[in-house]
Amino acid sequence: MAKPNPILPTLQSPRELETLSLPQLERLADEIRDVLCNLVSARSAHFASNLGVVELAIALHQTFDFLHHRLIWDTGHQIYPHKLLTGRYDEFQTIRTKGGLMGYPHPAESDYDLFCTGHAGASVATALGLTSGDEIARPDDDRWSVAVIGDGAFPSGVVYEAINNAKRNGRRLMVVLNDNEMSICARVGSMADYLDRLRMNRGYVGLKDEIAKVLSSVPVLGDPVERFLVQVKEAAKAGLSGGMFFEDLGMRYFGPIDGHNIALLRKYLRMAKNLDGPILLHVVTEKGHGFRPAAEDPVLFHAPPQFRRQDDEIVEMQKSSSRSYTHAARDAIADAMRRDQRVTVMTAAMCQGNKLEPVRDEFPNRFFDTGICEAHTVAFAAGQAKVGLRPIVDIYSTFLQRAFDHIFQEVALQNLPVTFMMDRGGLAGPDGPTHHGVFDLGYMRLLPNMVVMAPGDEHDLAAMLDFALQQPSPCSLRYPKAMAVKVARQDNHPRAPIELGRSEVLRWGRDGTIVACGGMLANCLEAASLLDAEGLDFGVINARFVKPLDEETLRRALRETPVVVTVEEAALACGFGTAVLEAANAAGVSTSNIRRLGIPDMFVEHGERGELLADLGLDASGIAQTCREGVRETQLA
Amino acid sequence: MAKPNPILPTLQSPRELETLSLPQLERLADEIRDVLCNLVSARSAHFASNLGVVELAIALHQTFDFLHHRLIWDTGHQIYPHKLLTGRYDEFQTIRTKGGLMGYPHPAESDYDLFCTGHAGASVATALGLTSGDEIARPDDDRWSVAVIGDGAFPSGVVYEAINNAKRNGRRLMVVLNDNEMSICARVGSMADYLDRLRMNRGYVGLKDEIAKVLSSVPVLGDPVERFLVQVKEAAKAGLSGGMFFEDLGMRYFGPIDGHNIALLRKYLRMAKNLDGPILLHVVTEKGHGFRPAAEDPVLFHAPPQFRRQDDEIVEMQKSSSRSYTHAARDAIADAMRRDQRVTVMTAAMCQGNKLEPVRDEFPNRFFDTGICEAHTVAFAAGQAKVGLRPIVDIYSTFLQRAFDHIFQEVALQNLPVTFMMDRGGLAGPDGPTHHGVFDLGYMRLLPNMVVMAPGDEHDLAAMLDFALQQPSPCSLRYPKAMAVKVARQDNHPRAPIELGRSEVLRWGRDGTIVACGGMLANCLEAASLLDAEGLDFGVINARFVKPLDEETLRRALRETPVVVTVEEAALACGFGTAVLEAANAAGVSTSNIRRLGIPDMFVEHGERGELLADLGLDASGIAQTCREGVRETQLA
Repeated sequence: MAKPNPILPTLQSPRELETLSLPQLERLADEIRDVLCNLVSARSAHFASNLGVVELAIALHQTFDFLHHRLIWDTGHQIYPHKLLTGRYDEFQTIRTKGGLMGYPHPAESDYDLFCTGHAGASVATALGLTSGDEIARPDDDRWSVAVIGDGAFPSGVVYEAINNAKRNGRRLMVVLNDNEMSICARVGSMADYLDRLRMNRGYVGLKDEIAKVLSSVPVLGDPVERFLVQVKEAAKAGLSGGMFFEDLGMRYFGPIDGHNIALLRKYLRMAKNLDGPILLHVVTEKGHGFRPAAEDPVLFHAPPQFRRQDDEIVEMQKSSSRSYTHAARDAIADAMRRDQRVTVMTAAMCQGNKLEPVRDEFPNRFFDTGICEAHTVAFAAGQAKVGLRPIVDIYSTFLQRAFDHIFQEVALQNLPVTFMMDRGGLAGPDGPTHHGVFDLGYMRLLPNMVVMAPGDEHDLAAMLDFALQQPSPCSLRYPKAMAVKVARQDNHPRAPIELGRSEVLRWGRDGTIVACGGMLANCLEAASLLDAEGLDFGVINARFVKPLDEETLRRALRETPVVVTVEEAALACGFGTAVLEAANAAGVSTSNIRRLGIPDMFVEHGERGELLADLGLDASGIAQTCREGVRETQLA
Repeated sequence: MAKPNPILPTLQSPRELETLSLPQLERLADEIRDVLCNLVSARSAHFASNLGVVELAIALHQTFDFLHHRLIWDTGHQIYPHKLLTGRYDEFQTIRTKGGLMGYPHPAESDYDLFCTGHAGASVATALGLTSGDEIARPDDDRWSVAVIGDGAFPSGVVYEAINNAKRNGRRLMVVLNDNEMSICARVGSMADYLDRLRMNRGYVGLKDEIAKVLSSVPVLGDPVERFLVQVKEAAKAGLSGGMFFEDLGMRYFGPIDGHNIALLRKYLRMAKNLDGPILLHVVTEKGHGFRPAAEDPVLFHAPPQFRRQDDEIVEMQKSSSRSYTHAARDAIADAMRRDQRVTVMTAAMCQGNKLEPVRDEFPNRFFDTGICEAHTVAFAAGQAKVGLRPIVDIYSTFLQRAFDHIFQEVALQNLPVTFMMDRGGLAGPDGPTHHGVFDLGYMRLLPNMVVMAPGDEHDLAAMLDFALQQPSPCSLRYPKAMAVKVARQDNHPRAPIELGRSEVLRWGRDGTIVACGGMLANCLEAASLLDAEGLDFGVINARFVKPLDEETLRRALRETPVVVTVEEAALACGFGTAVLEAANAAGVSTSNIRRLGIPDMFVEHGERGELLADLGLDASGIAQTCREGVRETQLA
């Protein structure tokens, strides 16, 4: 993999792929893998899944002109080869950095990127919408819409909903099921078993020799009779090689085929293009393909830490000794499960992201990985709660949006004691807007019966989980994608215990009060120190509860200090500061001295969390600045 | 059906069913149907679906003691026979009235009602949670969890997610698929076709004689060898009679069987109970069974208007000449589709509820009924918008919650021009808390790029739809489940055109301003009249936009009038009044003279919308009262 890169850097357009020979295409695949390896040895990024789709991306772009046809990459973290093939080689090293390329498809970057996709499963529905729209708007213009979706995303309910609807408008719909036998972790569920059975049957075993031979004798652009013959052959093959499940749902099933064989991929894609859809092409790939360490441990290499390599060997891998809120949450969950047999935990395919592997191993019967099925997960947890268990739903803030209606009906309306651990509540950093979890305070606060908490530090997190598990009703807590901090209390005061609707006053200040929501506490304390150095005396309150609010303490702050600044890593609309406004207004208290800091009404792009917070005025210096302005304005008023 | 009712009124507990003979059970079924017919001739209620599950409810309660085992009715509007069998005969006539029985399962009413279900599809996940919880909490206690789900709810993605997860914990999970070949309207999609094929195959045709005979020779509580034989027979039957789709997903499939044959239902339920799950029992019923007019027109009789009957004949049916906002929305949609070929409309199985039949018939190619698949529907619409169409997503406010994440990712983040028509935005009346659409202003307002409107009257509704279809970005409008009103403008002023972020001032008043959000406008005007009669001069503003707000006009009201009362039929948390607080605070304007009227932090029970609004102080008299108090308090201040 240390060869020169003569093809990729000069590739101006994916149309040039048509002129390349098969050996050249295979060489190009090697070059792409080399770029991927070099990138990831310099910076953490999605890796193994991208190694797996190199040949698929080449075959797709060679077969289809996607300025005419439509292409959607589901859960777009496997978009890197596509980006390299569509004119972004020169900027590629900027990926996942602020102002650089996004780590997901991004319409603003390229006409080849149609949808910014980060949440899994919507690609089939979206592609069906694209082709149905084309059918209405330009009926004579036979464009295909192709959705590439991994087997990890495939159990999402919305995929089934879309397939169930595909027959009516899917004449030009192709779903490429990229089956690498993995979600981020090992995948789960009956669909996974079914795909395993499909792969193991005779059709696939004989594929490389037998079926390829048969297909090579079939003209790709035949007359109607020949096309009919192709259809008959394919129908027979589908019957032989399985796939009845998809046929029952109205899709024509082809495969499974080897997703690292460019010639075979191309042949099947061309053939499918000459048939009528909806078509499901089952492609088998290896996550991490072409780089031995990644193929051997695709979980570690999903988004690995930086490493140095020599050819196919890892020479050195960065070790992180730092402890994140995710680790702290995991430890708190494990402690709770040790103490109380009723406690269960569920993750939606994020066992690794949620660092739950030790919990899975210690409590196999009380750990549930449901796959990428947030809606099911929440309703499932509600069922467990109803019969006396204390389920913890451990899902990233942004992905939990998928289950909003079930949080409403199955949990809040029934008033069941389900605890939501909303990881990555706030800015998710380099993943960007699909992964920022900035709406959770609003969508949780909306629902009656729901307690909404945000731990100010790691101590709070563990104590809040314990508190939540004692409550008779639903609770949620959210914490950022950040290193866990332990905030020292002034004069070695003991930490206040968690009490429903009670904040923790770290100190009172003459000139104003900073009310910190959750993970902003450390920045707020630092801001207070900055102000202190200028002679401005600001108090700091660790809000802890977004709902119910500590109205008494907040009223005291509003009454006794000239400025109150609320600080949250969440959308300002409907957020914590808004809850303070609502409560003050309902109590007949003036809100004129309240200033709210948070995320304005926009989608925040990708970048390091620290950079993004600074841009939004949510770092210590920005918070201090808002406090200074507040003081100045109240002095003027 | 005019016989005396000797069994039902004396039934104290469903356990007594065990002692009844088959003819008595059939007689009981007739009695239940009679009660249902009498109820619905007095009041609008869910009807045809309840007629369809009478025998199923009897057989379930005869076979299982559901104080021990667990029963979930999906989309619980077919709960009536269950309520009659579980001790609620005496109160039955109160159903769907304020303070009376709920038209859905309700845990507060009975231990037999586990979950309050109104949104479709969650039953399988919930039941899996129940049985998995039982397995952990009481492993020696072999309880079954049974989910009864209609074929209308079956295409919901969450059903597939749950089935995909069922193998691990579903040893005591039974899913009864109640297949009546209907959603509320004719059902759609490939799963529907598949169920049709299952029904048409030999297994079902031969069922009544052949299979029943075979099964009658199988002991229901046999020794292990006999049980094994049953399993072999059933496996063979499953192979013969289809159902491989479900077998592929890890469910044992039985059926289809006649859902009106109590003896057969009982036999299958008993047999299944002696096997290991997860089991899917496919039961075929007729919606409206036993009352000829309903069986012949199950769409009309889903929730028919009041009627008088004589035996099996409708003598008279109430005709409603009144025009609802739903009608107005439908007409506006049809007009838009006539004018602009790019406009499409989608409903999630609510063609009848949304009154879209004429639109479906006039524009068959631009009308999409996606089935109960809100998530798919929104992503599908996004795809159409991306290729230049102007899709309208016409879904009840409360059901659209199911698609929150797709509104976020596929629409708002991509900034695509999809228009959301949120019907039943506000209190849905007799359907109760699962159907009230009171969170939409919050969950829509949270999302960047989203315009949120609420028409003050019928004129506004049509004009707002036209406006939305001209916008380059997503728009939503919400209107209540209520009769459409046309508000006369003072002195015959022309109505102000719809402009982005502009409210309409109906009049200014010296003593205060009422800011009406959407359908509250008429009540606000009436309140102003009441106040006028007392010498209090209140202005009225038709807010029109929840986002972006008309900050200029609102600031003027706050500056120039002593009290500003915001009025909305939505949750106060995160709602319209909150948006006003946020805007005022951000602009440095005092909020002290703002009073917010809306729905407090609670789930509102069922009742007539007018009754509920009055209870919440949202009728004219309640609004006037808040205005009076506001005047008094500002005079004191």
